[in-house]
Amino acid sequence: MKVDGRHFRSIWLEPDGWTVGAIDQRRLPHEFAIVRLETADAAADAIRSMLVRGAPLIGATAAYGMALAVRDDRSDAGIDRAYEFLIAARPTAINLKWALDEMKRVLKPAPPSERVQIAYARAAEIAEEDVAINQGIGRHGLALIEQIAASKPPGEPVNVLTHCNAGWLATVDWGTATAPIYLAHDRGLKVHVWVDETRPRNQGASLTAWELGHHGVPHTVIPDNTGGHLMQHRMVDLAIVGTDRVAANGDVCNKIGTYLKALAAHDNGVPFYVALPSPTIDFSIDDGIRQIPIEQRSADEVAVMTGRTADGRVESVRIVPDGTPTANYAFDVTPARLVTGLITERGLLRPERAALASAFPERSTGH
Amino acid sequence: MKVDGRHFRSIWLEPDGWTVGAIDQRRLPHEFAIVRLETADAAADAIRSMLVRGAPLIGATAAYGMALAVRDDRSDAGIDRAYEFLIAARPTAINLKWALDEMKRVLKPAPPSERVQIAYARAAEIAEEDVAINQGIGRHGLALIEQIAASKPPGEPVNVLTHCNAGWLATVDWGTATAPIYLAHDRGLKVHVWVDETRPRNQGASLTAWELGHHGVPHTVIPDNTGGHLMQHRMVDLAIVGTDRVAANGDVCNKIGTYLKALAAHDNGVPFYVALPSPTIDFSIDDGIRQIPIEQRSADEVAVMTGRTADGRVESVRIVPDGTPTANYAFDVTPARLVTGLITERGLLRPERAALASAFPERSTGH
Repeated sequence: MKVDGRHFRSIWLEPDGWTVGAIDQRRLPHEFAIVRLETADAAADAIRSMLVRGAPLIGATAAYGMALAVRDDRSDAGIDRAYEFLIAARPTAINLKWALDEMKRVLKPAPPSERVQIAYARAAEIAEEDVAINQGIGRHGLALIEQIAASKPPGEPVNVLTHCNAGWLATVDWGTATAPIYLAHDRGLKVHVWVDETRPRNQGASLTAWELGHHGVPHTVIPDNTGGHLMQHRMVDLAIVGTDRVAANGDVCNKIGTYLKALAAHDNGVPFYVALPSPTIDFSIDDGIRQIPIEQRSADEVAVMTGRTADGRVESVRIVPDGTPTANYAFDVTPARLVTGLITERGLLRPERAALASAFPERSTGH
Repeated sequence: MKVDGRHFRSIWLEPDGWTVGAIDQRRLPHEFAIVRLETADAAADAIRSMLVRGAPLIGATAAYGMALAVRDDRSDAGIDRAYEFLIAARPTAINLKWALDEMKRVLKPAPPSERVQIAYARAAEIAEEDVAINQGIGRHGLALIEQIAASKPPGEPVNVLTHCNAGWLATVDWGTATAPIYLAHDRGLKVHVWVDETRPRNQGASLTAWELGHHGVPHTVIPDNTGGHLMQHRMVDLAIVGTDRVAANGDVCNKIGTYLKALAAHDNGVPFYVALPSPTIDFSIDDGIRQIPIEQRSADEVAVMTGRTADGRVESVRIVPDGTPTANYAFDVTPARLVTGLITERGLLRPERAALASAFPERSTGH
């Protein structure tokens, strides 16, 4: 999408033909800094440290990470080693495993002399496939927004609530949850986005607000506590969120707090949609609530907040008393019964096994 | 309760017999600073700026504010003027109106020469009544905690989730939601408190964590997004929150985000209690969701976060991109159907008109 009028993606091959460019998302929204990844270690670090984040972008970064690894060591052992340490960088992200499995699948049968070229080509394809998938999600989600817009008085915006950042920064381009929003906005539909700030890492306040603002989409940042009140007072027409992993039964693992918004949407008859590229579906998991492991991250992410001071320095401040214990569960699981529909590149699906399996027969039988 | 072993209340008459001491709660948890209020204007400012906060403490501060006003001007007009500007300091707080009505009731019939003494005496009584009320809430809530403790394996703590600060800092002493917790802890029951940080003003992270920590109660601060996940995984035995206003039908107005926790509690069969002193019940409001006005506060409370830097300075940092709109709804209303019970000084009540009216017949007929 656009940053001050110029088109960007979140990851790209540099003109040198081998280093990988990315936006250092930890420095947003206060600084727009670009980094170059030159080794598989750097790619793993970028994933681990959340320099890049978001399931699809993590997948693309891992794919390019494998390409960088193969450039250094074309052997089977090198591929296996890279697979192991790249997958360990973010255990919850199913796209990471999917992208690495893909890379392994095309690399292992190839002669070592061709592996570098094959690796870069497949990584680029994975990136392009993500863009195409998100455009598909955008088209199917746009239909939902258009339908709501048609039912509202002319001139009134469609109010969309979103949580975390499932925007273009979390993917290669377009985003998942934001793809329908960008498409609607670009077509001249009036949309307004309620952006959950998304504690503790503030991806909404820092990333979603930044990308919507730079593309020109009207939005308002709200504390995560606010969505229930807004829904109760008919100030939200629909919610669209992303996901890190969808179980075969339609349970949705996403950023902590998603479940609370889904409860509020359900209680107030507000449609609650989850936008996802199909690699996010994990057909090996039957019951999301019981089986998806929930990553616990550093307590300091809760205790310490980073922002910009009045005189322009980026500074971190502790917001709890010294010695206060904090807990940091990164994700929660929203039961399928609270999800109105899953917006995939193959259309809007009911969050249930049969619907997922029939839309993606090639994946559901593979496990 | 205790601060480093020494007993404190949140508001008190200084030994000079006329100035009013209070803790500057805006500077917690990083600094424990005491201020002296010497005028009614200062009392109104303290309420407006949230130097003092919490419904019962606001009531006590307003009562002392009226005493300070009468000391400067004993006339009927002076009382009326003080009433008007004190009540305007925080329109949502029902206790504010209650305390000021009380002050007016005892002052107006008295001869001007006796009004100063009467005002200070009634303000002191209002403070003492709050302490007695909270001890009553504590006893009735303790029974609920004891019951849960008895059903758990020995040695396992009772896990209580709370939102915002309905602790002793929000009252004159003991707190409302915390009174049962302090009482249980002081009696040797093993309790652990999940403290919602409570964005945007972080009263949980800064105040509840501070007071629990200084009194010695085990606790963990969590992002507001976390409670649903914890309840889903049986890590919360009960929720106890405070309230700013309860409607006659049992709808509960409390800090923004309370409604989301009540939804999660309901969805997971976790008891959700609201602790309240009876002045918090507004028998003139029939339908909390439709009739209670929700205060909107400054957008900067969402955009700017204050904490302590690594080198000990208290600093404010902006966490959203420049120019990003934010919205700041201060409260929400939890429908009575999601509330397990109201813990009052007269016992545990069902959140419905008949139960409230029969427990407080002297108040329910007055409107």
